[in-house]
Parts: sequence; structure tokens; C-alpha cells
Amino acid sequence: MTSPLSIVLFSGTEDKLHAAATLAAGAAAMGRPVNILLQYWALDAFRTGQIGKGHRLACEAEPGAPADAASLPWVETLRMAKELGEVQIRACAGSLDYLKLDVSELDALVDSAGGIASFFADAGDGSITFI
Amino acid sequence: MTSPLSIVLFSGTEDKLHAAATLAAGAAAMGRPVNILLQYWALDAFRTGQIGKGHRLACEAEPGAPADAASLPWVETLRMAKELGEVQIRACAGSLDYLKLDVSELDALVDSAGGIASFFADAGDGSITFI
Amino acid sequence: MTSPLSIVLFSGTEDKLHAAATLAAGAAAMGRPVNILLQYWALDAFRTGQIGKGHRLACEAEPGAPADAASLPWVETLRMAKELGEVQIRACAGSLDYLKLDVSELDALVDSAGGIASFFADAGDGSITFI
Repeated sequence: MTSPLSIVLFSGTEDKLHAAATLAAGAAAMGRPVNILLQYWALDAFRTGQIGKGHRLACEAEPGAPADAASLPWVETLRMAKELGEVQIRACAGSLDYLKLDVSELDALVDSAGGIASFFADAGDGSITFI
Repeated sequence: MTSPLSIVLFSGTEDKLHAAATLAAGAAAMGRPVNILLQYWALDAFRTGQIGKGHRLACEAEPGAPADAASLPWVETLRMAKELGEVQIRACAGSLDYLKLDVSELDALVDSAGGIASFFADAGDGSITFI
Repeated sequence: MTSPLSIVLFSGTEDKLHAAATLAAGAAAMGRPVNILLQYWALDAFRTGQIGKGHRLACEAEPGAPADAASLPWVETLRMAKELGEVQIRACAGSLDYLKLDVSELDALVDSAGGIASFFADAGDGSITFI
């Protein structure tokens, strides 16, 4: 049985969201189950009506970078990852409280809300990737 | 024997410190040993007299985010994690040098100073989560 | 057989590059194979003629931090890691496209270009550290 790829997705910039979506798609294509826990600014990026409309890059971006944040199709990549394999996207209950959001305000890509305990139950004693 | 959760804690913003503390508490509650290596700006956040007094959020935060950085009780969450299970917090020797800090200037939550080699010895061939 | 340390290196600031190089050197010294996938702003930092000339710190740095970004010898640490053990550095094909770079424009520390699939093939079902 393949060990899952468990991702705590914290960041809400387009480049990090795209990096996370690419990892999820790569793992799903290899047959690894993927568990994603949305926290903080990543959770904010999944709000219905807002998802995929961001234009910010991470502060780690080189000033004057030639690249265009809007060209990063992370929502489509994530949708594809869910078609390719077993990809669970969970909204962190604590971050929902913190941001005063309800799970009904999030895009349909999000499967459920849950706490850190259920995330760890799925992660088993496997690794956690923080993005 | 459960595989440890090994965290390199690099970032000194309240939201990332709270995310790390939550992961540590979750893992400890599941019975996983937790090893935290404090580097750079996270190390700086553990200085006696300064710890828990930060108000900065990560640059990944949405501008105009409704949330209040000061409401993130990461110090208490980390203290609770240490009560729940086996949580080791080590100050990275190289980062102490870099920041011209001595381990005696750090909060009592920090157990010891140590190099990357002792961190890897505890991590075994397990995963490393970088925050 | 030791499980590899697989690093997605995304960030292009001196402090995060140095943290990644230190982890790679520590793992190599322990006999763990290391796979590094350069993405986005980290890839940009490996351009020939530019490598090691950056002076930026992460936005997680404390304003007024006493430390000097230029004193972080990450290129030398990474070179040492490659001498100590089995360290593979791969440029992410998708990020090369995004940044309109060719692998021939990168420093000789970079071994090859490749996609996310070959990175996951080397990672096996092991952990991914995102920096």
C-alpha cells in the first residue's frame, strides 16, 4: 500500500498554489493518495467567486521576474489531479474560524471541513509537506 | 515504533509559528514524537522577553485579511504540545551564530542547542517538514 | 536501503537557499540520497553569472535583523553536499518554460532538467520537503 502525500497548504499566492497543484497531480498520477489541508491564506484563495482570480506572487519571487502570475492554471491542475487519482481537499476547521468563513462559502473542489486530528489520521505516520 | 515528525522551523511570523505549533500538537496527540529545529527567524521569535510579542503575518497573507495576528496563541499551543507528548525543541547552532544569539537568551520552551547532524540523527530516514 | 530526502526548492532568497543547502549537506553526510527539484525563484537563482550574487532575505526575516544575507555561503555548502554524497539537482521543466530559461543557462551544479514525474519516480513513496 502506497504511503499518502499529505500537504498542509498554507500560502495563498498563485505560484505556491500552482506548485502545490503540480505536486498533487504528480502524486495522483503515480497512484499515491493525496490529502490536502487548507489553512489560512490558502483557504482564503478557495472562496467561491474568488478562486483563480488572484494575481499575487510569493515574496520569494525575484523583483522584475519575467513571469505572469495570471498564467498559472492551478485550479485546472488541481481539478485534473482529482480526476487522475484519490485527492482529498479538506478545509482546516481552525482556519475557517480564524478567517470567519463557513465551508459553504468555498469552491466545490473542497471536499469537507475537518480538524488537524482527522488530517493526521489520514497521514498515518507519513510525511507532511508544508507549502 | 511510530516515525517522528521532524520540523525545520525557519519562519518567524505569527501565522506560520501557529501552523507549526498546531502540527506539533496534533502529532503529539497521536503519539508521534516531534523534533523541531529552530532556524533563522523562528529562532529569533523564541528570544526571552520577545516570545509571543510578534504581530507580523507572513507575506502570503491576503492584504486586508480580516484576521488578527495577535490572536494566534502559538506559545500556548506549543506548551500544550509538550505536555501532550514527546516534543523536542532544539536551537540550530549555525543559526545561533548567524544571529549572534546564545541559547541562554532563549525561552525555556527550547530544550537545547544542536547542529543539523543531531537533528538528522533523530529524524532517522524519516520526513522533514520545512515551515 | 535509506529513504531519499526529496526537496522541492521553490524560494530564491539567500536564507532559504542556505537552509536547503544545509539540509542537503546534512542528509548527504548521513548517507541519504538527496533529490532536489528547482522550481520558480530558486531556479532563477541558479542562472550562470547570477548564482550566489543575491542579497535578498525572505520576507519572514525580522525587520532590522542583525544578520547579513551576503554571508550565507549556500553555493559552497551545496557543492560540499555533492562531494559528501549522492545529491541530484534537477531543473523543473515546467518552471524553465515559465521563466523562459534554458537548462544551458544554469550553473553546472544543476545536473539535468526533468519533469515532476521523474522527481516522483526518484522520491518513491517517500516524503517531499518544500522550501
